[in-house]
Amino acid sequence: MEIQRICIVGLGLIGGSVALGLRLAQRMAHFPLHLTIVDTHPETRQAAEQLADQVTSDLAEGVAQADLLILATPVRTILACLAQLPHLRPSGMMVLDLGSSKADICAAMDQLPPAFQAIGGHPMAGKEVAGFAAATPDLFQDQTFILCRTNRTTAVVEQLACDLIAKLRANALFLPAPLHDQMVAAISHLPYLVAASLIRSAASLNDDRLWPVSASGFRDTSRVAGTHPQMMLDILLTNQTAVLQQISDFQAQLTAVQQLLQAKDEAGLAQWLQQAQNEYATYRQHKTG
Amino acid sequence: MEIQRICIVGLGLIGGSVALGLRLAQRMAHFPLHLTIVDTHPETRQAAEQLADQVTSDLAEGVAQADLLILATPVRTILACLAQLPHLRPSGMMVLDLGSSKADICAAMDQLPPAFQAIGGHPMAGKEVAGFAAATPDLFQDQTFILCRTNRTTAVVEQLACDLIAKLRANALFLPAPLHDQMVAAISHLPYLVAASLIRSAASLNDDRLWPVSASGFRDTSRVAGTHPQMMLDILLTNQTAVLQQISDFQAQLTAVQQLLQAKDEAGLAQWLQQAQNEYATYRQHKTG
Repeated sequence: MEIQRICIVGLGLIGGSVALGLRLAQRMAHFPLHLTIVDTHPETRQAAEQLADQVTSDLAEGVAQADLLILATPVRTILACLAQLPHLRPSGMMVLDLGSSKADICAAMDQLPPAFQAIGGHPMAGKEVAGFAAATPDLFQDQTFILCRTNRTTAVVEQLACDLIAKLRANALFLPAPLHDQMVAAISHLPYLVAASLIRSAASLNDDRLWPVSASGFRDTSRVAGTHPQMMLDILLTNQTAVLQQISDFQAQLTAVQQLLQAKDEAGLAQWLQQAQNEYATYRQHKTG
Repeated sequence: MEIQRICIVGLGLIGGSVALGLRLAQRMAHFPLHLTIVDTHPETRQAAEQLADQVTSDLAEGVAQADLLILATPVRTILACLAQLPHLRPSGMMVLDLGSSKADICAAMDQLPPAFQAIGGHPMAGKEVAGFAAATPDLFQDQTFILCRTNRTTAVVEQLACDLIAKLRANALFLPAPLHDQMVAAISHLPYLVAASLIRSAASLNDDRLWPVSASGFRDTSRVAGTHPQMMLDILLTNQTAVLQQISDFQAQLTAVQQLLQAKDEAGLAQWLQQAQNEYATYRQHKTG
């Protein structure tokens, strides 16, 4: 089964990159694709005109004819859209979301009427800049695209999601939603909070000479602090439990090294630092690029 | 006055990049330069043969004929070298160091006999990989090169250091040693500890699927965790006070956001995140590249 009518809600960095990636794949492989974009921002809708067959600000209009709905807004907007779906499409449809936390969304998908076929998704790629202007057709290439099964996941919607992921040249990985949320808390949400705390801490020195003194280490460590605050707010509030757990684990690590340094425990400090470098080396062996 | 005989002790990433940068500048401007390299590693000495006029493992031999000594080893080795200098060169010489923390080194320079002219230095550039193999002639180009005056700093050694910095195409910035140490704790040593804590915290999830799931945000935030542990050990122990202060400031920031998230205080959280993005924007305005 080849899906022909896709509706993407939210043409930001992620939704926009999916749309651009699909159009690029279509130019290569010549499959039929009718693309509808739903976005609340007039300027984004204008930018979408060249890319889409239909552009609207109205979710009802957007989902009316679509076979597959791709929800690419912030998480709480995805939850609001899912709540409207039974009313907007009583006959059901196929649904994939691209939200950054999955437990709440998958729970909402579980509650959709049986006419719906739904699966949670999360492409592991991003930038510290948001919006369609930053979207690129190759954003997901060679990256992991997580899929989380729900009570509404069928073989058909699963195959459709995998086909979409292949078109975006990403690699599908199935994870239970709670494990996904714990993992992204560790490798995305906590790093954001750490980068943001770092920049706030440095800024509190309140010395203009600090920034010119900083070099590539600070630039890279702090980069994700530029992430859109409203998006992060949404992510943090919908992944609260896992994020709080990760903050706590991180604080335990930092407190341990703080105590070793306080005590000038050279052997203990050396061991702590060496283990960090070893773990970093393991990570780099498993993840290049 | 043009310095002709320079001895660099420690041909690692920093010392090696200075040597390569000087040779590049020499090819452009044709100034006389007799370069001696002192290094304890046989393989590094072998690699230095093409670059240097004289290569030795013996500090006494290296400093015997030099006009300017550049100490580019870890901090505690620099302190050990400074302690030997009055004995090795009773007639004095000019000294610049490139160590990552400055208070201890500048205090040791203060204690050199008056025949010595000495100034502390710290080029703000680095990589997460160490050693001469990673050195490049343009490592310091357009970067800030901090200079810290000591009781042994004269107009002559200051001018020499500035001339060297110009040859490396870096920008000199004079800072008092304690302020330098506080600043580098904030923008280099703390970011390292944070990156190392992050990778240790993520690794403690003990799940092989975690690394493929991670994307560019984690890669950048954790990158400096790859820094050589022995070098960091040296830096942390010689900059203990400032680093502990920065850890404490950072923990206060992280604890604040943890409490806001715990309380699901959306307005407070939004304000915290927005301020982080604002501070990041200010930093990026002051520091491009």
